[in-house]
Amino acid sequence: MDPLRHVKPAVRAISAYTLAEREALVKIDQNENPRDLPEALKRRVLERALARPWSRYPAFDPKELLQALARVSGWRADGILAGNGSNEMIAALLVVTVGGGTKVVIPEPTFTLYALLTTVLGGEAIRVPLAREADGRFVYDAETLREARRRHEAPLTIVCSPNNPTGTTLPSAEIERLCRESDGLVVIDEAYHEFAGRSVVPLLEQHPNLVVLRTFSKAMALAGLRIGYLLASPELVREVNKARLPYNVNVLSQMAAIAALEEPKLLANGVQLLVEERGRLLTRLADMPGVRALPSEANFFLLELVSANPKAVFDALVRRGVLVRDVTSYPQLSQCLRVSVGTPQENDTFLHALGTALVESGQLATRGRA
Amino acid sequence: MDPLRHVKPAVRAISAYTLAEREALVKIDQNENPRDLPEALKRRVLERALARPWSRYPAFDPKELLQALARVSGWRADGILAGNGSNEMIAALLVVTVGGGTKVVIPEPTFTLYALLTTVLGGEAIRVPLAREADGRFVYDAETLREARRRHEAPLTIVCSPNNPTGTTLPSAEIERLCRESDGLVVIDEAYHEFAGRSVVPLLEQHPNLVVLRTFSKAMALAGLRIGYLLASPELVREVNKARLPYNVNVLSQMAAIAALEEPKLLANGVQLLVEERGRLLTRLADMPGVRALPSEANFFLLELVSANPKAVFDALVRRGVLVRDVTSYPQLSQCLRVSVGTPQENDTFLHALGTALVESGQLATRGRA
Repeated sequence: MDPLRHVKPAVRAISAYTLAEREALVKIDQNENPRDLPEALKRRVLERALARPWSRYPAFDPKELLQALARVSGWRADGILAGNGSNEMIAALLVVTVGGGTKVVIPEPTFTLYALLTTVLGGEAIRVPLAREADGRFVYDAETLREARRRHEAPLTIVCSPNNPTGTTLPSAEIERLCRESDGLVVIDEAYHEFAGRSVVPLLEQHPNLVVLRTFSKAMALAGLRIGYLLASPELVREVNKARLPYNVNVLSQMAAIAALEEPKLLANGVQLLVEERGRLLTRLADMPGVRALPSEANFFLLELVSANPKAVFDALVRRGVLVRDVTSYPQLSQCLRVSVGTPQENDTFLHALGTALVESGQLATRGRA
Repeated sequence: MDPLRHVKPAVRAISAYTLAEREALVKIDQNENPRDLPEALKRRVLERALARPWSRYPAFDPKELLQALARVSGWRADGILAGNGSNEMIAALLVVTVGGGTKVVIPEPTFTLYALLTTVLGGEAIRVPLAREADGRFVYDAETLREARRRHEAPLTIVCSPNNPTGTTLPSAEIERLCRESDGLVVIDEAYHEFAGRSVVPLLEQHPNLVVLRTFSKAMALAGLRIGYLLASPELVREVNKARLPYNVNVLSQMAAIAALEEPKLLANGVQLLVEERGRLLTRLADMPGVRALPSEANFFLLELVSANPKAVFDALVRRGVLVRDVTSYPQLSQCLRVSVGTPQENDTFLHALGTALVESGQLATRGRA
């Protein structure tokens, strides 16, 4: 009697996506928006929630939300699918396209869920390493990406831009070139697009093989409510919809998303503040010996520890109430931590804690003597 | 340029799960709980929601919810996975077990999502028709089910009990026998178990190949918030968890589920009321010529139109503001409508509308003359 033998071998072989939970005063480990929605906006949502029966299913198609997403994105509503976070839309897309042996080109390091889901579905992740620039950034190597896609005749290529965890982007011209070179699907995860200030949604009109993913978890400050969406040609959306679970976005999250979209100025201001803080942090860190903060177009950046042990620095930060993300297990990032941009106060706390941690670990002293 | 060719043929071939939206005064088409949670309970949830930042992700594992589910179900918390509706848990289970050609035994008619997801994932649904009893009920044929499972060496068997849309159950002794006969997984969808007053959760201890699914969408009156859960051995749960999307249950729905579990008496009373109303409806319908209401252990029942056209009766009900479910496209159910049990007032409206519709269609008159 071994019921586990009915679990697919590819699933048995992998570890679950996981994250150790830690309490922290300054939580800059999940690329969340450090500013919650204003209480007045939350109250507006809750009043609407009170007036609606919770015992009734959401509408089969969340029309009002799709219309609002169409307005804000500039893309047609019948080319949009809303999900329980963009994770669910990634999963639905892969479920309808990935079977045994399907090749999916995935740069790395990147968000680990793409390769995890590809593997679980029996596909093969074709990993293309990022290249390194003189300024330390890990950047997309468009030529190698195209080459891998051609050689493997890959039906799917998934690019996170700006990329988690490197903060770097693939230029629109390169994305367009990928779309033109074959009819393989080009999936651009724009989870962080607001912080880069540009989007490839305008390319959708010309490219029926382009798929764009977006989320309310970052700039939109709604990570707790799980809302994401997928934009593509209506024909492709119709197919992905077959793997969308019925009633996948709950009524309260739909209301929250719609309310957030009613306040574009508020959210644009929040993005502006984070972009400014990102600049301030990078400038301050440029003066700190022993570390290299890598330029980023997202609401986070990589912090490379030039010679200190990054795990020791991570622990020293935790002891000071600052939680960043340990990304040392990612390919090429064994010396790196990922730091989300917080509020000005949180960022100051982080800078101070980091300086102290480096002094303690002998880094600053060492460098100071050099 | 045909990006759609990268969608799996099995997906292209099927239609999406769908439901036409209609407005209705009496909405008894989705097996929802007709009574919303009391406003005081909703306010309690909303106050908690206000105090929690929405910009922050849910906890990686929803520990408080899992502990509450463990208490109410009597099963260990590390053997429970919570999901965005039980639909998501069905999908996660199938994703880790179903690959190209995997055989899944599915009785029919039943909830269509099992076969849809099996097909999308490249598996093969082995359909076992329900048998018919003298009293008109469509019942599980345990012998044929066991036989199909044996012949196909099926790694999975999915049984909805009480079954949607027939309201009939597979006895616990038969479920236990299925579990003992092979190590193939036996999945029991208990979405409606509260209305039958029994559960196979106590069998989990002895049967590591048993998987139980439950939902907050029916008796628990939270269909709009999307919460479901899966119970199984901790070893199997660990594997299914690999296909669970990170942060899959949003914070507001977690709070609502926990609050609902704080009021067991309230919800038990709601179930009791629906069970009584189900009895009253069946008694009243037994006296109505031209129809046969089939006994059910769920919060809905099948209404067989003995000679009237069920689509005409459906339309006549809609014109009177009563929306039931047209299930005529399901195997064996070409003469049936599915009716959810509503509030006493809703049920009276339904009975009156049905009587009038039957008179109009000539049914009652005809029968009266016979």
